Amino acid sequence: MRPLSLSLTIAAALAVAVPAAARELPPKPTVADVVKASGAGDWRVPDPENTLYLEIPTGRVVIELAPVFAPQHVANIRVLVRDGYFDGLAILRSQDNWVVQWGDPDEKNPRPFKTAKATLPGEFTVPVKNDRQFTRLPDRDGYAPQVGHSNGFPSARDPKSGQAWLAHCYGMVGVGRDNASDSGNGSALYAVIGNAPRHLDRNITVVGRVIDGMPLLSVLPRGAGAMGFYEKPEQMVPIKSVRLATDVPEAERSKLEIMRTESTSFKAVAEAQRNRGGPWTKVAAGHVDLCNVPIPVRQAK
Amino acid sequence: MRPLSLSLTIAAALAVAVPAAARELPPKPTVADVVKASGAGDWRVPDPENTLYLEIPTGRVVIELAPVFAPQHVANIRVLVRDGYFDGLAILRSQDNWVVQWGDPDEKNPRPFKTAKATLPGEFTVPVKNDRQFTRLPDRDGYAPQVGHSNGFPSARDPKSGQAWLAHCYGMVGVGRDNASDSGNGSALYAVIGNAPRHLDRNITVVGRVIDGMPLLSVLPRGAGAMGFYEKPEQMVPIKSVRLATDVPEAERSKLEIMRTESTSFKAVAEAQRNRGGPWTKVAAGHVDLCNVPIPVRQAK
Repeated sequence: MRPLSLSLTIAAALAVAVPAAARELPPKPTVADVVKASGAGDWRVPDPENTLYLEIPTGRVVIELAPVFAPQHVANIRVLVRDGYFDGLAILRSQDNWVVQWGDPDEKNPRPFKTAKATLPGEFTVPVKNDRQFTRLPDRDGYAPQVGHSNGFPSARDPKSGQAWLAHCYGMVGVGRDNASDSGNGSALYAVIGNAPRHLDRNITVVGRVIDGMPLLSVLPRGAGAMGFYEKPEQMVPIKSVRLATDVPEAERSKLEIMRTESTSFKAVAEAQRNRGGPWTKVAAGHVDLCNVPIPVRQAK
Repeated sequence: MRPLSLSLTIAAALAVAVPAAARELPPKPTVADVVKASGAGDWRVPDPENTLYLEIPTGRVVIELAPVFAPQHVANIRVLVRDGYFDGLAILRSQDNWVVQWGDPDEKNPRPFKTAKATLPGEFTVPVKNDRQFTRLPDRDGYAPQVGHSNGFPSARDPKSGQAWLAHCYGMVGVGRDNASDSGNGSALYAVIGNAPRHLDRNITVVGRVIDGMPLLSVLPRGAGAMGFYEKPEQMVPIKSVRLATDVPEAERSKLEIMRTESTSFKAVAEAQRNRGGPWTKVAAGHVDLCNVPIPVRQAK
């Protein structure tokens, strides 16, 4: 877990000791405290059939796929992966406070598909009845009537339209497309590396979330071309391979666990982020934005 | 301006041409269109007395200071800068989806202050009457009763308490502190490199915003230590110098202009982000979060 305090030993070293402010917030469990106090039943191992390993020279990026929200795209991505489609392709684009994107760098002679579909209907929303593990956040949001989490993914829904969708938070993975809703197919994917671009919600097929290795993507040099595209081939980051965890020998798999978002512990995580206690925090927000709720991931013991 | 479309020539190359969706949004001016159509009067040159140049090996990061919101800290930072305090110090920390922070790496023998103050009262909020250039966004926000912009900075206010404050959006610069409210002094500064940590609002002194060079900070390797601190001195990024623009010969200054946030053009920028038109966008959000409103900066001609 990322520590949530900005408390600094350095600032402390410089600062003259002073008495605590008159009105202090009482201490409360932090997100780290909640994670520490959680039980084994609060965690799940992601299904290896829904887990992608994007291998780049600096290491492995692990993506959990969300077939409930994008069944056709997830199926197509599995086919592309098993056909070896991504192996030897590249990260093409890094745009600051926006996305990193990967796919085929060769526009003139694009790599042909073997058995994957070239177009798919956009899976921008699904009927709410498909999303059976939704737990609603109590907080308001301007982008959707309801927000919360669905089995590990930040999501939103509109009871009026009866539709649910994944929300564009940091680390979410979506399907690049052209103007036509059905012009995406999963061969061009992006991960969000900046402030949550929630205005993309319901406009694009979101297929999953980076659950490990996000810093390998977020630090990539921003491209100098339009939309952050790299202008020279040597600036692109080669993709060694993309594999489904289930196709990787067990000894080589990442051993990760994700906190169950329907657990009481996760509810406590959101509350710890919503109303932080003292002594560092002086004013509790009394609110948490969907994309500011951490979804804890840990190494399995 | 960052382009707002994910439209891909690569996806286009792969996709079969398809007729436009039955229900298309009519095209509308984009943020880039609004910027292009703006008049000279919609732009201002930041005051060189409120402009910091943070020079690191990869280039210059330009920070606009906000004395209206943090008069004492901005004054102290000016003193530190003019005393050469930051020159030769380092970027100490980079934590993914959180902050990059700079200051004195030597905890045991911290660099002494010459004439700057070692402690200052926290300037977490100011009376609303001090903030005379507030323009309110029409959108709701769970973190504050009102949000908008104050002369180029994202800000929030509470008419009930009569207080206003700067909001922690991407690129905002704040003052690291220890638990005591008055333990910060401006010698340890951070910039936000991830999803807006709005729960820090009203808990810390925010002194400004990065207006140029943000990618030089956002791509720094994340530190392996707690809170993203670099564990080895050689991982730290040396600070060549920090200067006020006013103390730099005019020929060496960055020539930047910022869109006036009280202008009609800026209102149109927010609206372009709030309700995007077709053909790429299929559903307009009808809402924009404070930190998703771009504050345009351009090179002066």
